[in-house]
Amino acid sequence: MAKERLYLYDTTLRDGQQTQGVQFSVPEKIAIAQALDDIGVDYIEGGWPGANPTDSDFFDARPRTRATFTAFGMTKRAGRSAANDDVLAAVMNAATPAVCLVGKTHDYHVTAALGISLEENLENIRASVAHMVAEGREALFDAEHFFDGYKANPAYALACCLTAYQAGARWVILCDTNGGTLPAEVGTITAAVIAAGVPGDHLGIHCHDDTGTAVANSLAAIDAGARQVQGTLNGLGERCGNANLTTLIPTLLLKEPYKSRYETGVSEAKLTGITRLSRRLDDILNRVPLRSAAYVGASAFAHKAGLHASAILKDPSTYEHIAPETVGNTRLIPMSNQAGQSNLRARLAAMGITVDPKDPRLAQILDEIKAREDRGYAYDGAQASFELVARRVLGLCPQFFEIKRYRVIVERRKNRYDQMVSVSEAVVVVKIGGDKMLSVSESMDAEGHDRGPVNALSKALVKDLGPYTGCIEDMKLVDFRVRITQGGTEAVTRVIIDSEDGHGQRWSTVGVSPNIVDASFEALLDAIIWKLIRDGAQPA
Amino acid sequence: MAKERLYLYDTTLRDGQQTQGVQFSVPEKIAIAQALDDIGVDYIEGGWPGANPTDSDFFDARPRTRATFTAFGMTKRAGRSAANDDVLAAVMNAATPAVCLVGKTHDYHVTAALGISLEENLENIRASVAHMVAEGREALFDAEHFFDGYKANPAYALACCLTAYQAGARWVILCDTNGGTLPAEVGTITAAVIAAGVPGDHLGIHCHDDTGTAVANSLAAIDAGARQVQGTLNGLGERCGNANLTTLIPTLLLKEPYKSRYETGVSEAKLTGITRLSRRLDDILNRVPLRSAAYVGASAFAHKAGLHASAILKDPSTYEHIAPETVGNTRLIPMSNQAGQSNLRARLAAMGITVDPKDPRLAQILDEIKAREDRGYAYDGAQASFELVARRVLGLCPQFFEIKRYRVIVERRKNRYDQMVSVSEAVVVVKIGGDKMLSVSESMDAEGHDRGPVNALSKALVKDLGPYTGCIEDMKLVDFRVRITQGGTEAVTRVIIDSEDGHGQRWSTVGVSPNIVDASFEALLDAIIWKLIRDGAQPA
Repeated sequence: MAKERLYLYDTTLRDGQQTQGVQFSVPEKIAIAQALDDIGVDYIEGGWPGANPTDSDFFDARPRTRATFTAFGMTKRAGRSAANDDVLAAVMNAATPAVCLVGKTHDYHVTAALGISLEENLENIRASVAHMVAEGREALFDAEHFFDGYKANPAYALACCLTAYQAGARWVILCDTNGGTLPAEVGTITAAVIAAGVPGDHLGIHCHDDTGTAVANSLAAIDAGARQVQGTLNGLGERCGNANLTTLIPTLLLKEPYKSRYETGVSEAKLTGITRLSRRLDDILNRVPLRSAAYVGASAFAHKAGLHASAILKDPSTYEHIAPETVGNTRLIPMSNQAGQSNLRARLAAMGITVDPKDPRLAQILDEIKAREDRGYAYDGAQASFELVARRVLGLCPQFFEIKRYRVIVERRKNRYDQMVSVSEAVVVVKIGGDKMLSVSESMDAEGHDRGPVNALSKALVKDLGPYTGCIEDMKLVDFRVRITQGGTEAVTRVIIDSEDGHGQRWSTVGVSPNIVDASFEALLDAIIWKLIRDGAQPA
Repeated sequence: MAKERLYLYDTTLRDGQQTQGVQFSVPEKIAIAQALDDIGVDYIEGGWPGANPTDSDFFDARPRTRATFTAFGMTKRAGRSAANDDVLAAVMNAATPAVCLVGKTHDYHVTAALGISLEENLENIRASVAHMVAEGREALFDAEHFFDGYKANPAYALACCLTAYQAGARWVILCDTNGGTLPAEVGTITAAVIAAGVPGDHLGIHCHDDTGTAVANSLAAIDAGARQVQGTLNGLGERCGNANLTTLIPTLLLKEPYKSRYETGVSEAKLTGITRLSRRLDDILNRVPLRSAAYVGASAFAHKAGLHASAILKDPSTYEHIAPETVGNTRLIPMSNQAGQSNLRARLAAMGITVDPKDPRLAQILDEIKAREDRGYAYDGAQASFELVARRVLGLCPQFFEIKRYRVIVERRKNRYDQMVSVSEAVVVVKIGGDKMLSVSESMDAEGHDRGPVNALSKALVKDLGPYTGCIEDMKLVDFRVRITQGGTEAVTRVIIDSEDGHGQRWSTVGVSPNIVDASFEALLDAIIWKLIRDGAQPA
């Protein structure tokens, strides 16, 4: 049986920009559009030209894409023709092959918010869509508040959709604007729209996550016959966000009945890039990636329970619904005091270290981990530090260098313009082989801004590590998390650092101390040592 | 029509503890159990006694609850009687009114993981459940891998459930252990279990969020007839987490058809505590609350789009699916408009500051807050700093003293016993009236342990503040929280400090800087200045 085509419509750059705290720059929008095009979505909605200066600039600078570039706008206002509506004109001027116009379909909103008659609104929809079609654009109609509107006045909500379809809209998209509709209702109402005369292959679904069911709502609409699904990367969007394409795409490609029934523009090969794509968006937004995200989260294939971990060793399918590599993610068997020796041996095996099940050093490693956890260390999220603890017990951790001492000075004072400024300066003394190296660095970045004592210390440490300098050159700190494990200024600080190298490999290390600078230094040191071991560096 | 009873089963303390990075202490478990009991869940699963020392300690110390306290364990192993199984005995010894036992129902797991025959597994289920019932406990059976098992061998998966039910299990819980099942399938298979003979009012559902549909899956099972739903607060749990009760509870109470059809143990009045409960759990875990969380997220009722915000002012139902106060959450409207200003005046009035509604400085304060929030400040949890921002704009913040400069030195080196030790030393220079005061302090506590640079700086600052010294003598730092708001060692650090005085008054202040020492210093300074204003201190 031939597969049916299902279309993916991304609105990260438009609805996703409604997320609190998110404001894309033009270069960021260009980078995201290219990444979306690369993975294989069918439509990229770039923004609302005219409503926002950045959006207008972006449309001028938009990249050439295989995906259909779409400008967003709204149906013309009453009392003027479509050709004379300046808001609509700005959307037209973006010169995109497709235009998506939002219009009211809930009778209350037409009369109360727009203050026009129901008939006038139908005419606005008809004339706006027809105008786009006459201008040679692919027209899409976003039926705002459709599900609430259908529940209030089904005949009118359906009339709006039919009007748009009959005026030539390629797609009519049913929007659950307020996000309050649940899956069963979405399914029933979508089926009713098809029964009323808008064919499923002209029907799209646009959901919000206000009840935590945006993904399920989208699936329910597909089950009922809709063939276009709208969403955003990482579920960005106003309030609780839009349907998460980073979740929907793997489900549509990997899970039944979708896998056998439908075809999308995303290939299985491209699907392996989706974890990277998700992290990249967080990178651009300076957000910490959600560890528990479906498919792409760092914890999505992490097995903490001891029984689960030992079963995973025999057969990963015992506790994994899909293979992590199909979405470019990786399996994680973390340590914790819930874990037994089976977790430990699995972890060691993954590092390439085979230990006899009867080796008494297994218990020693667990004791050492337990003692450290009591002091505030946490190894669930710091696999690399865990590996180093184990290697030290097993005698498999070379002494590459020795830290003799360090000193950091943090100073805040007035500069010559009478402004308070701060600067930190760090000196690190390292012994490598017979050589003593002394490095100094300050906390200023390229723009002359102070980045604090940990930054200065980290730069001094990596500045000159003699024979190892080349090996750590491509290392980059990508995340830095601090947790205070006791109250007061006498708190104990736990620092977790995520590092990345030039090949995109990531590893996490932990440091603990009442002194935050010390805790950070410890985590930094572990990160460097782990990298040297991984790269097979030889002790000087 | 009488409402049917729907039972809520919380497993935050057991399955929620499988979250990467989560390890509850006994006092934390007690606090969470009390909060769960207060909101009105029916069952609290406390952990697996015997599998983990913390869990055993917690059962010994567990609070008295209205909710049915439940211990978790697994069905007995083959080759011994239920009474002689030591794992089962440890669970029994927790002396809870209810016991939930997990058992295999997927034929492959029985033969491959347990290595026993299908018949032996049925007998283990039967004997274990019967033993619990004979001992006077309410027995629950967690049907592990049920949905995958049903798809592989429906007859056997059903036989496992029927065996448990016929042996006296009050509840048989269908577990989607690997989280890969989608809503439609959950509905169909749940209906098949009821048709096979386990009545819906003895059937529970336990979902994981690996496809982002755990909430929808739970609803699908209820629609099919299941009457117990399991989940965790904030969706904690292994991998992508469990079904989120913080989402499900509002949906079941507020949305149709659930609202009219079912009754739970949570009242509408208690529902208004759910946002606070969600934030409290994050506080205990020192996690940043997810802004986009359904119902309880800080952005769940935030209206960023200009058109939405103005419609909301006329009628909130235009862009809100429920009223935020029903779940104890609040609406957030961009500070720039009228609603923002009336909010602000109310907050200022609460601080004893009256401002005319037409005063242009209201807009100035909002702009200043907005600009600071963009830089990483957060005023929700730092009322005292918020007050100081407003006072500065209004000219109501006296200049008590001026910080001329400070310097902190952090040093780590070998001591004379060849051990690495660290010490910090801080110098603060303050100008009060015409006098310059120079104070120095180091980071050692009474036991000679280094407490780090922030401790040294804080001690130096309060050591001598001239005429104000008496006023701040009874001030004490009671909590110190650090959040990193961007990634990398170039992260921006937000420090929130809670202070308390001799009268038990508490106030919170915030500091933000890429330099953690600076951020801490800023929050400390705000805390002192707020106290001086509150006590009516006169500028020197």
